[in-house]
Amino acid sequence: MTLGEFELIGTILEALSDTISGEGVVVGPGDDCAVVEVPPGHELVVTTDVLVEGRHFPKNSRSDLVGYRSVAVNLSDLAAMGSEPKYLTVAITIEKPDKDWIVQFANGVAFCAREAGVKIIGGNVARGPLSIAITAHGIVPQGRAILRSGAQVDDEIYVTGFIGGAGQALHDFDSLIDMGDQAIETLAALREQELRCRYFLPQPRLRLGCGLRSIATSAIDISDGLLADLQHITTASSVGACIDLDRVPIWPGTDVLEAVGAGDDYELLFTANASQKNGIRDLIAQTGTSIECIGSVTELPTIEVLQGGKPVRPASGFTHF
Amino acid sequence: MTLGEFELIGTILEALSDTISGEGVVVGPGDDCAVVEVPPGHELVVTTDVLVEGRHFPKNSRSDLVGYRSVAVNLSDLAAMGSEPKYLTVAITIEKPDKDWIVQFANGVAFCAREAGVKIIGGNVARGPLSIAITAHGIVPQGRAILRSGAQVDDEIYVTGFIGGAGQALHDFDSLIDMGDQAIETLAALREQELRCRYFLPQPRLRLGCGLRSIATSAIDISDGLLADLQHITTASSVGACIDLDRVPIWPGTDVLEAVGAGDDYELLFTANASQKNGIRDLIAQTGTSIECIGSVTELPTIEVLQGGKPVRPASGFTHF
Repeated sequence: MTLGEFELIGTILEALSDTISGEGVVVGPGDDCAVVEVPPGHELVVTTDVLVEGRHFPKNSRSDLVGYRSVAVNLSDLAAMGSEPKYLTVAITIEKPDKDWIVQFANGVAFCAREAGVKIIGGNVARGPLSIAITAHGIVPQGRAILRSGAQVDDEIYVTGFIGGAGQALHDFDSLIDMGDQAIETLAALREQELRCRYFLPQPRLRLGCGLRSIATSAIDISDGLLADLQHITTASSVGACIDLDRVPIWPGTDVLEAVGAGDDYELLFTANASQKNGIRDLIAQTGTSIECIGSVTELPTIEVLQGGKPVRPASGFTHF
Repeated sequence: MTLGEFELIGTILEALSDTISGEGVVVGPGDDCAVVEVPPGHELVVTTDVLVEGRHFPKNSRSDLVGYRSVAVNLSDLAAMGSEPKYLTVAITIEKPDKDWIVQFANGVAFCAREAGVKIIGGNVARGPLSIAITAHGIVPQGRAILRSGAQVDDEIYVTGFIGGAGQALHDFDSLIDMGDQAIETLAALREQELRCRYFLPQPRLRLGCGLRSIATSAIDISDGLLADLQHITTASSVGACIDLDRVPIWPGTDVLEAVGAGDDYELLFTANASQKNGIRDLIAQTGTSIECIGSVTELPTIEVLQGGKPVRPASGFTHF
């Protein structure tokens, strides 16, 4: 069933249910604008990301996966700044709004929003080729955001989780749409079982990001690939880096040279002074997420990559454009 | 010349020049997120709107007009809440990013941002069919946002400026792309001369909107059409309305029955208690914008439209979907 604009908005809001109101939301969806609170002593952290069908997710993807992924990649940017996620706007352009597709899409959005404790405060629907534009808002105590530009020479370089899983899933981009077993109905169940959910269901490192505020000198999320994103840090900080591939934690069955070039993992890459080892150990215990030291910050403005003690030259990162 | 992602971002940021930094912007474009201030005692006001080529502006439109219009329609929503505009994110999807096109687009964005005193704090570029997704952020003293839901029975109904101009320009949608005289190079000069600039270059009523905080009981901007947007107010406020078409200020040469059904004027429609006449007179003097009383709020939940003292039934509003 194809829906008109106002039916479509109504259907989406109904499916979003409890995620459109709550703490800090003074006026939610339905007026010209939303009105929200930013607590005293805090700054607002803002990011926006657009996902286009056929480019940032395969054509004919399950719409709850599209909804989840659209939210998660934006929240991952908030995590990289050390900010607490608060509010989202979700704009969708769609050619033929089918009711079932839309409800499932909104369910995916709500699932990720609920996990992160973030509220959907507004949005937009327009007719056009399928794409999703999300703007995510977080808060951070004044002056405490973690930037890309703070890395210091001799800092250690760390990465969370395991990388390369999303890249491996992407080897078979088209098969990503076939989620196979129809009995797996919930995203939570799907996440446990499928490698390709590394691509569709990344888990933004939000708690860990907040914990890094007192530890990291710089941070970024790995969307373009570990090496490409490391270069964003070294460029912004006017430093270099040396990475030991033998220490990079990779997803089982992936090749490390491919893994460091592949994007879409949405793990965090950060730098910290060597004195922060205890803090990092505590953070691992608190979040249950592994954090590995994979190298160090150098003065020479290049990135040296070692494997078996020898320099190697991996392929470059994924470009989202 | 077609550009890569990072060249494209660099080109856009260069053209945006002075609009990417300034008061309240702690971290501007270039990190995972922007970081901005929200002054104590204020709430954050957020809106998002997407413009799709061929739907919300004609194919092959001059790109500075597209850039201007994309910003203006979002700022208009901030005006309708009585909020002061502060920060914008601008996301664009584009198939073949030509450098000249992009620079001109960014010039249009910057022109409107500069007029409103708003800062561009971040954005996104992705490859895909041409569309622009903007999220606009304003601030309002705590509890002072003007909502759609505050209209009271016996309030008077007002509209700013003159309506129907954008609708008339749209009669010849395709010719909108031909801005004729190449000698007219600046948007400021263009605005003075062309009816069709009512469509492309609406002027969001920002100062007036802030002034309405102590006057209006409800407000909305006219994007769907005066009658359609009036209905949004009456529905949200659980009231009705009676409008006298003979009092509706229309753009020279337009037909009032068409004008009240046409969208895209981005004037403000608001309700106020009859005791506010002096305040409204002052606001007209301060802003130089005309404000006309066109009817009143009624108890019966319908919208009655009079012309020459008799009920009439105009055509319905434009749907943006």
